[in-house]
Amino acid sequence: MSDMKRWVLKRRPQGEIQHGDLELIDEPIRDLDDGEVLIRTVYLSLDPTNRIWMSDQDQYLPPVQIGETMRGGGIGVVERSRSDKFKQGDVVNPGLSGWATHTIAHEGMVSPVPVIPGVPLTAYMSVLGGTGLTAWFGMLDIGQPKAGETVVVSAAAGAVGSIAGQLAKLRGARVIGIAGGQAKCDWLVNDCGFDGAIDYKNEDVGAALDRLCPNGIDVNFENVGGEIMDQVFSRMNNFGRMTLCGMISTYNLEGPIKGPSDFGRILMHRLMIKGFIIIDYLHRAPEAFAELGPLVASGQLKWKAHVEDGLENAVDAVGRLFTGDHDGKLLIRVSQEP
Amino acid sequence: MSDMKRWVLKRRPQGEIQHGDLELIDEPIRDLDDGEVLIRTVYLSLDPTNRIWMSDQDQYLPPVQIGETMRGGGIGVVERSRSDKFKQGDVVNPGLSGWATHTIAHEGMVSPVPVIPGVPLTAYMSVLGGTGLTAWFGMLDIGQPKAGETVVVSAAAGAVGSIAGQLAKLRGARVIGIAGGQAKCDWLVNDCGFDGAIDYKNEDVGAALDRLCPNGIDVNFENVGGEIMDQVFSRMNNFGRMTLCGMISTYNLEGPIKGPSDFGRILMHRLMIKGFIIIDYLHRAPEAFAELGPLVASGQLKWKAHVEDGLENAVDAVGRLFTGDHDGKLLIRVSQEP
Repeated sequence: MSDMKRWVLKRRPQGEIQHGDLELIDEPIRDLDDGEVLIRTVYLSLDPTNRIWMSDQDQYLPPVQIGETMRGGGIGVVERSRSDKFKQGDVVNPGLSGWATHTIAHEGMVSPVPVIPGVPLTAYMSVLGGTGLTAWFGMLDIGQPKAGETVVVSAAAGAVGSIAGQLAKLRGARVIGIAGGQAKCDWLVNDCGFDGAIDYKNEDVGAALDRLCPNGIDVNFENVGGEIMDQVFSRMNNFGRMTLCGMISTYNLEGPIKGPSDFGRILMHRLMIKGFIIIDYLHRAPEAFAELGPLVASGQLKWKAHVEDGLENAVDAVGRLFTGDHDGKLLIRVSQEP
Repeated sequence: MSDMKRWVLKRRPQGEIQHGDLELIDEPIRDLDDGEVLIRTVYLSLDPTNRIWMSDQDQYLPPVQIGETMRGGGIGVVERSRSDKFKQGDVVNPGLSGWATHTIAHEGMVSPVPVIPGVPLTAYMSVLGGTGLTAWFGMLDIGQPKAGETVVVSAAAGAVGSIAGQLAKLRGARVIGIAGGQAKCDWLVNDCGFDGAIDYKNEDVGAALDRLCPNGIDVNFENVGGEIMDQVFSRMNNFGRMTLCGMISTYNLEGPIKGPSDFGRILMHRLMIKGFIIIDYLHRAPEAFAELGPLVASGQLKWKAHVEDGLENAVDAVGRLFTGDHDGKLLIRVSQEP
């Protein structure tokens, strides 16, 4: 019987995640009970929300407890099975599992990955996984962009933002992205078809929004919060919608999170702000995949994965989400694809 | 030919409205053109939003300009007509008119008041006017309370709040009102059927909310803003809705309007905040009146008007909205009912 490795939360990070906040431990893999499968993790998803789970602030799921395996999503391959539903070699999603080389899960928690020929496995960790669902429901169900409207996406070159923006383009909206660095901005405009992009690291965001959104902003797909959100918010048109998907600029901060500087605009301009978490929409996933699947299979929707190798690098890698030092959906390849 | 009186904005108020900010002027009534009617104002509506219109802050209509008649809503009686659609003695609504004894309006802007036998004229300035529409759309279209949910209404004894709360009760919700003074709180509970009321002038609002809303808050019908809003906001349940109808606590302030202290709760608890102004819903008014009319005619819906006599008292009277020193929808009786 081989061993498994897993990252355990040792203490709650103060600000940025530090070495020592988590510990990688080794332990034997236990025997399976009836109905259980042993899954070897192939890809682990790293997401901004991981930082939320490490803190004990008010949040949408219970925080990961000290001493527990760090929570995470992934896909893997069945290595052993005592279930009639899964056999060795099946590619499966164990649900929210953990930062671990192996997961033992009851068959009821496990779902098969519906592989589409020609689509790489990383797609199911990204555009055909929670990332794509987040973009689809956040943009189309909440933001509801209409043809001719102006949409601004922050963290636009990110895994969610880039898909959200492309979906708004498909609905006929004018789409402006905010991203960090010229290369990301170029990718948004040249590859993803955005109408414009703002490099927040080198441009005055407010001035750029004035230039690129001469008719104001109707939909804000918000991933960042803080000053960037405020610049967009202060330019929202009457009846504008803000999909509040994330506020990554605040996750390393302690205490209450500041909102827009003039809350009165919500009243005067009849704005709608809606926070959402994708787990609330999972029961409607087929609606989204019905559109996303063909768009991915045909290559019409652009997406990228940024793969780092080795579970031992998870703590270093997750920090890249906060500096933007990655290019596409951030994944850890924990073991080789089957 | 008699004279008319009208209030003209002389300068923008700093803080509370002061004598001298507006001036009451006398002038001859001009002759009518074809298609016009002369309407003698009977009731003038005083509303918190009047204060917004006097300022030059960012707002939902153009501010009243210096030298212009102060904007206001009212109903009156046709005194003279050069229209085939209206005759002397008709009770009509001239649309947004002004703080004036008389209005000359084109027939296209005038609508008849659809009088229901037994219902006093003041009802059309309140529960069967913009006030009732505001309550109905804000609570039912935006807040959407469900049976068993907890609803909190601020400025609950106000014209809008008291109707909004009763409509939520009719949908089976538990309704808590926040109002100023024991008499108003008693009226909410004993007459309007609220499940509880909080006297913000004499109670710790947060502690009272904890006591009266043990299961948290699902819908906040918000009229006040500031600290009271924040106390409610910080107790909103997952998937809670805030109907942002007004922020009267902020209208005498200059500069940006502060929002809730922890904006992150919108994300973590998947809250929805929607600002609204009733003028956007006027085309749907029949939906609301279909329910409100019978409820008023049968006496099932409780409402009150607070009538002050004389257009010359409008400036003093409007200040009552900000101190709460009034009891029901605040109206000026500009001239006698027909």
